Amino acid sequence: MPRPRSAVPSSPSSASSDAGGSPTGPVRLGPGAKAALVPATVEIRAGFWDTRRAVNARTSIPQGPNLLESAGNLNNLRIVAGIAEGEFRGGYPFVDSDVYKWLEAASWQLARRTPEDGGPLAADVERIVALVADAQQPDGYLNTWFQLLKSGERYQDLRWGHELYCAGHLIQAAVAHHRSTGRTELLDVAVKFADHIDSVFGLPGSGKPIDGIDGHPEVETALVELYRETGERRYLDLAGYFVDRFGHGLLGGEAYCQDRVPLREAANVEGHAVRQLYLLAAATDLATETEDAELRAAAERLWSAMTATKTHVTGGLGAHHDEEDFGDPYELPNERAYCETCAAIASIQWSWRMALLTGEARYSDLIERTLFNGFLAGVSLDGESWLYVNPLQVRDGHTDPGGDQSARRTRWFRCACCPPNVMRLLASLEHYLASSDAGGLQIHQYATGRCTGDLDGTPVAVRVETGYPWQGTIGLTVEETPADRPWTLSLRIPQWCREFRVRCGDTVYDQSDAPVRDGWLRLERTWAPGDQVVLELALEPRLTVADPRVDAVRGCVAIERGPLVYCLEGVDHPGGGLDDIVLDTTRPLQVQHRPDLLGGVTTVVATGRRRHITDAGWWPYASADSAAPETDGDPVELTAIPYYAWANRQDGSMRIWLPTS
Amino acid sequence: MPRPRSAVPSSPSSASSDAGGSPTGPVRLGPGAKAALVPATVEIRAGFWDTRRAVNARTSIPQGPNLLESAGNLNNLRIVAGIAEGEFRGGYPFVDSDVYKWLEAASWQLARRTPEDGGPLAADVERIVALVADAQQPDGYLNTWFQLLKSGERYQDLRWGHELYCAGHLIQAAVAHHRSTGRTELLDVAVKFADHIDSVFGLPGSGKPIDGIDGHPEVETALVELYRETGERRYLDLAGYFVDRFGHGLLGGEAYCQDRVPLREAANVEGHAVRQLYLLAAATDLATETEDAELRAAAERLWSAMTATKTHVTGGLGAHHDEEDFGDPYELPNERAYCETCAAIASIQWSWRMALLTGEARYSDLIERTLFNGFLAGVSLDGESWLYVNPLQVRDGHTDPGGDQSARRTRWFRCACCPPNVMRLLASLEHYLASSDAGGLQIHQYATGRCTGDLDGTPVAVRVETGYPWQGTIGLTVEETPADRPWTLSLRIPQWCREFRVRCGDTVYDQSDAPVRDGWLRLERTWAPGDQVVLELALEPRLTVADPRVDAVRGCVAIERGPLVYCLEGVDHPGGGLDDIVLDTTRPLQVQHRPDLLGGVTTVVATGRRRHITDAGWWPYASADSAAPETDGDPVELTAIPYYAWANRQDGSMRIWLPTS
Repeated sequence: MPRPRSAVPSSPSSASSDAGGSPTGPVRLGPGAKAALVPATVEIRAGFWDTRRAVNARTSIPQGPNLLESAGNLNNLRIVAGIAEGEFRGGYPFVDSDVYKWLEAASWQLARRTPEDGGPLAADVERIVALVADAQQPDGYLNTWFQLLKSGERYQDLRWGHELYCAGHLIQAAVAHHRSTGRTELLDVAVKFADHIDSVFGLPGSGKPIDGIDGHPEVETALVELYRETGERRYLDLAGYFVDRFGHGLLGGEAYCQDRVPLREAANVEGHAVRQLYLLAAATDLATETEDAELRAAAERLWSAMTATKTHVTGGLGAHHDEEDFGDPYELPNERAYCETCAAIASIQWSWRMALLTGEARYSDLIERTLFNGFLAGVSLDGESWLYVNPLQVRDGHTDPGGDQSARRTRWFRCACCPPNVMRLLASLEHYLASSDAGGLQIHQYATGRCTGDLDGTPVAVRVETGYPWQGTIGLTVEETPADRPWTLSLRIPQWCREFRVRCGDTVYDQSDAPVRDGWLRLERTWAPGDQVVLELALEPRLTVADPRVDAVRGCVAIERGPLVYCLEGVDHPGGGLDDIVLDTTRPLQVQHRPDLLGGVTTVVATGRRRHITDAGWWPYASADSAAPETDGDPVELTAIPYYAWANRQDGSMRIWLPTS
Repeated sequence: MPRPRSAVPSSPSSASSDAGGSPTGPVRLGPGAKAALVPATVEIRAGFWDTRRAVNARTSIPQGPNLLESAGNLNNLRIVAGIAEGEFRGGYPFVDSDVYKWLEAASWQLARRTPEDGGPLAADVERIVALVADAQQPDGYLNTWFQLLKSGERYQDLRWGHELYCAGHLIQAAVAHHRSTGRTELLDVAVKFADHIDSVFGLPGSGKPIDGIDGHPEVETALVELYRETGERRYLDLAGYFVDRFGHGLLGGEAYCQDRVPLREAANVEGHAVRQLYLLAAATDLATETEDAELRAAAERLWSAMTATKTHVTGGLGAHHDEEDFGDPYELPNERAYCETCAAIASIQWSWRMALLTGEARYSDLIERTLFNGFLAGVSLDGESWLYVNPLQVRDGHTDPGGDQSARRTRWFRCACCPPNVMRLLASLEHYLASSDAGGLQIHQYATGRCTGDLDGTPVAVRVETGYPWQGTIGLTVEETPADRPWTLSLRIPQWCREFRVRCGDTVYDQSDAPVRDGWLRLERTWAPGDQVVLELALEPRLTVADPRVDAVRGCVAIERGPLVYCLEGVDHPGGGLDDIVLDTTRPLQVQHRPDLLGGVTTVVATGRRRHITDAGWWPYASADSAAPETDGDPVELTAIPYYAWANRQDGSMRIWLPTS
């Protein structure tokens, strides 16, 4: 198929000079956006996240093309482009999206221009971008499943066809490619596809042939970003049309597809978790760009309901394997916690949009929890294998079902949505760490590096140095500041933190007197280069309990330290399983940093005992007053590791929530 | 298609004179069987089960043909038989089995010759049997899905094709039809299909073209019964071949299909619950007929492991909606308990075979628990609607997913396996209640009626009168007995029962001195007609706790009374939901019989309180030492109803396990 002509100027992107914030991040607010904050420009230079990003850059992303090759995704595009023979492979109508998510990841990586982002990666991106362009049909349509298997059936199975879903990932990749490299080849493809979609979908009476929505939201938030990137208002309007058509039975009224109730009327999140979260990201984008107060209220209401009733302690979302759904309020099982890695990513993407829109710290509290726990567990420490589901418990005697929903790390999946999604989030991680507004700079997440904000055209920059999350000390040094204009350095005091100290020049505060409001420590000064702030967050390990309505963890505690949720793994507790262990809450928790273990982790050592359960025979239920008495068992030293690092040694049992009696 | 000639003599069945026990029950042991017990002949005359059976006979079974008509099952057969036009309907390759299960149910019903079993039902059976015969292919094959949609692809998708599964249900229906009516039309069809299967399947080197097994076990236990009915040893051998070919990777090695490990080596039940249980029923049949000690040991081992680690308190089996699977040991969730109605039925069928083989009472303990709870909840009190899944909890704010897996009763299912399965079990229920051996008569389940056993050719009969399960008194009167030969009347003392009294003539025992061994109260006498035994089981309501490894119910109790598990329903507790209720275990449980309620049930009234949970904001987890304190809430009277009767009034929440603090 002939390569389409460029519809976008091919000069380097003018994005970096826009007021919307970080030129190389996934969210750049439009000129009319009414957001409290805009993303700052952040460079991560060392420490915890730098290590994880380096593995992503050196291992995960470079392996992408080969994996996409062996799974068939790239060849599908070649067949469609007429440059290869063969049959459609990959099994699903959404396999093109894996290619696009990888392109997005690689594009964010290219933006950083580190040594490993050099020639080979750029060449891979260029090659695959060209392939995508070659596969596009002359009218802009592109979906290899339909082009190869369902020719003539475009948009006839919107519930399951994933055509707009794939378009959304293509658009996001194109925006990333343009923002990162200034090149327009992929953006041209995306624009052409978006124009095609805009010509097809609309309300009855609009003159568009189809009034419909995709069963998997994704194109909506992508279209808003395409509007932000191109300035073309039609894309924003199209996104708004799509978002508001959910909940009206166009997809049969299923909660799974977000079609049971309009978002504006919904009381809680429901249905397929990733679908719900991508849709909410789009709603937040729209509320930001259009000042739609009702949509904003819905997003705020649903975020609060979700966190209060449907979020696992890891930040993981989605309680059901079946349909990958949210469960009912407080239905938060451990063994069958679905907590899809993609849902964690979608949660971060949505919460960041909420943080920018509202300026409230709690959204970044959830992002922190999700990043360090429910998200990061999705990729192995070596960056080579993955978890699609992230349970909170693997039982002694677990029978692994295999396949995508295995609780064992897997090299790639039949439905390979999660790995490139992890790659794109890690490659753009700096985007989610800091923001600025007219009054100053806000540090949302603590990582060693540099944050540059924009005070109405005046840059301010702060250097951050920290051993977080292992150490609680965060040192900040002002590097750029206007000489005579006061501004506010805002530091998020994490929701989990009960004690801290902060030194700012000669002033020392602690939690009793620091100027903290709604989670933000606000330090307003006329700063000078070299000014230092040292924040010390107390990192005592703690035992956490759940709302009593979370039946699944009644009588249990979780060990946490700082932002990290801890777990026990069978491999650290030889001589028995984990399911007969009881934590002794009267004994102190000891912290031990273990540079040798799992790439270097701080462990929490606790004391427990093994139950002595008298064999009650064949029936495991008994009258309360005649149940076999449980005798005190042998004490056992318990070594808890950060949850994100589990499943990196050998198969076995794991649990986060520990019974206390 | 021409009706096949009869391959079986059409004279009335000689079954009733066989030594193998009840002529009209699903299990009749073969002449060489080595079982401890044989089924007795039981007539249910009044009481709890008589009511349930009457609803089955008057409502559920008669509605079957119309429902099978509207779902398309019957028309599929007509199309295949060349007497109707149209397309295959029903969506699944196993829809023929719904017809066969209904035929089995109707056949057992016909055997009882009660007024409602008269002309219309017999005519429906005759009509549908003729239709099945007309649909059979000349070589014996019959499966409308393959005949209509996959012509030429016979046995090429054994994992999902369900051809042998359907054959198994056809065979069971044919055996029932023959045993009940003496007619051979359906048995001819079954024999012809079985002979066809026997000509196709066998070990490599056997000269048979296919070495394979069906992804859904069922034909195996059916073939053993066909051997028992016809005396044709080939069917027993074929069943043995099939059972032993599971676990060798013929189906890809999946646990779901029982193909991960051979049954003889398995340590616990796993995979799809119904598949596992039907396979184990067949293994037990084979162990009974062939004295295969290894197979018997496997069945005993797996039964014990299943009950001890994978059975819900209702007797429900299968912890996962996804794949309808057993979970891991002690993974017994409440909200997402799958507990398919068919799995409860399969459990009863298997346990009964174990009871006959071993003579042990515990198998009938599980049958009782399952009958009164996990099974009976599957059908509404009016016999018109059904549950496919039987959760132990429906939360406040539950979002019903609809479809087959709804926790709301449904008129019929897309996958309609459960309703006719319930019908066939209720229609043959008397088969599971009593047995005899050379030494006497064993009463396994208590229902008003008459039990007739066979002591090496000499009949013994006992009349039973009881208000069980509402009352604990069971009166037994000897009606037939040899004059001068002592024999043992064995009464099962239920596993849940801790106190009882029994009067036998002038002798009175209680639990401290009664001759009870392994669950059987053994009363050996030289009996005379009119001799009476009165057994009084104490029915105090009790609070039940679970093995501490059942994490899902930590800190909770269940209310039970006799064989019944109780639950709370939202409709009985206005003014709030159920999920904030705490049971006060220090207050007594009151029993109240309510003839007005749910067809007449004994309720248990308890005292609880509603939690006052201080709103902790958006995050439902907190440090154990800083969590919002819970204050004592308002006392609330709790009305618990038998679990089997739930979901018969209005949609709402429900829970069995109640927190105690």
